[in-house]
Amino acid sequence: MKLLRVGTAGAERPALLDAEGTLRDLSGTVTDIDGALLADTAALGRVRSAAESGELPVLDAEGLRVGPPVARIGKVVCIGLNYHDHAKETGATPPAEPVIFFKAADTVVGPDDTVLVPRKSVKTDWEVELAIVVGRTARYLESDEEALAHIAGYAVSHDVSEREFQIERGGTWDKGKNCETFNPLGPWLVTTDEVPDPQALSLKLWVNGELKQDGTTAQQIFPVAEVVRYVSQFMTLYPGDVINTGTPAGVAMGHPEPKPYLRAGDVVELEIEGLGKQRQELKGA
Amino acid sequence: MKLLRVGTAGAERPALLDAEGTLRDLSGTVTDIDGALLADTAALGRVRSAAESGELPVLDAEGLRVGPPVARIGKVVCIGLNYHDHAKETGATPPAEPVIFFKAADTVVGPDDTVLVPRKSVKTDWEVELAIVVGRTARYLESDEEALAHIAGYAVSHDVSEREFQIERGGTWDKGKNCETFNPLGPWLVTTDEVPDPQALSLKLWVNGELKQDGTTAQQIFPVAEVVRYVSQFMTLYPGDVINTGTPAGVAMGHPEPKPYLRAGDVVELEIEGLGKQRQELKGA
Repeated sequence: MKLLRVGTAGAERPALLDAEGTLRDLSGTVTDIDGALLADTAALGRVRSAAESGELPVLDAEGLRVGPPVARIGKVVCIGLNYHDHAKETGATPPAEPVIFFKAADTVVGPDDTVLVPRKSVKTDWEVELAIVVGRTARYLESDEEALAHIAGYAVSHDVSEREFQIERGGTWDKGKNCETFNPLGPWLVTTDEVPDPQALSLKLWVNGELKQDGTTAQQIFPVAEVVRYVSQFMTLYPGDVINTGTPAGVAMGHPEPKPYLRAGDVVELEIEGLGKQRQELKGA
Repeated sequence: MKLLRVGTAGAERPALLDAEGTLRDLSGTVTDIDGALLADTAALGRVRSAAESGELPVLDAEGLRVGPPVARIGKVVCIGLNYHDHAKETGATPPAEPVIFFKAADTVVGPDDTVLVPRKSVKTDWEVELAIVVGRTARYLESDEEALAHIAGYAVSHDVSEREFQIERGGTWDKGKNCETFNPLGPWLVTTDEVPDPQALSLKLWVNGELKQDGTTAQQIFPVAEVVRYVSQFMTLYPGDVINTGTPAGVAMGHPEPKPYLRAGDVVELEIEGLGKQRQELKGA
């Protein structure tokens, strides 16, 4: 299923994109798409039955804003340097075990919402990423199979990053990852049954129409199952938590000087195979 | 005012410790103590009037669990190496500007709840910290005065840390800061009017009755106002967000070998002048 949330920010309603690409209203079936729903097998079953009935009310998609596909996200865990080609372009040694950092859940916005270039920023950068959405509480998982069983679905994620804040201002990367609007997510939460192989997805990102990132999750150093299993050794994952699994090569930081960092007026588009497309215009904060 | 939340985990009710030290029920006045309340001047005024009336129902404190003093915390921002004496004991150069890292809000537990030593942990460490609770949305603040006006109050915070996960496993410190139960908070949210000088508070921590940390916020490299002003340049702070402002000297990591890291069965007690006391027993995860 392709689950989404549509409407004005903070007042989104749950919806579903059916197999024919028609937007349908789920607000008569569930109150919202959040961790509580994802952990509730019976409620998810009702959504699936309603979807298959073909009787859900049709929504007019025209002019309708799309919000983040999950409400009340608890935390956003991020994996750094998780693609061979991206580690190489940044000059970093591929990590021996996953690098973990955080984005605050309040940085999450809709897939087509405005992204704000922070004040005094000169190095705002892009990163297309495959996001995992957690479906079951996960502690100390032992195998890849167990890890995959704790995933509700996948989404497109934009891990917007300010490189000066991230790298040149001391401390951890978190300083450059948590500016307001820095995590567009969506359009859809695509349930795992529609993503048979998360390690065979193409990821693309364009800036002002020019293709900048063109990767595949086959290049991930630590695949999705390993990421979930590994993270669960260090923290508890809850339904509705999000894990951004890293970005392939092609970020601004990886370009020769002068590096083409983002400015107000730029337009970024992102797409992951089967997970939909995002489009953001940048504005000054 | 000293605001708190009492009752079983997830079902706490709002309460107040009055000037005579009597626990009083606030559940007839407000639904909960959270960011929405802290940002609502009128509602806070009603709480203050109710407190001053002396007519709030008395609660029997005997056997009552105390929860975290703030519900629905959005994010927990942490400042690292923020005390001259602690930077020295860890062998680190005092930072030129604040070091930022994160704890997930789901690590927050009550002040006397059990703390779990993670599986395979051999370096679980303690850190008593002054926590700031944000009262107003803060973006790009310009002065210390403005920063102080965005603070709702203060609380005792225990920034439990796993040093091997934090330092020896690659990536950012976040890996050792986010284990389940790693952030006891409270007992009280003490409003700013009762903390005239946040840079003159003594902080103490005992392990199994032995005094291990005995510091003062006067030793902070970046004082509370500067921390809030600084953090607001990199991210937006929302009502109910928490900032842990760093720990003074005396952590296990700062001891000579063999360093006395925490084990199941240990008891940690923490106290900050005027902000109350915590007591946690450690158990295996």
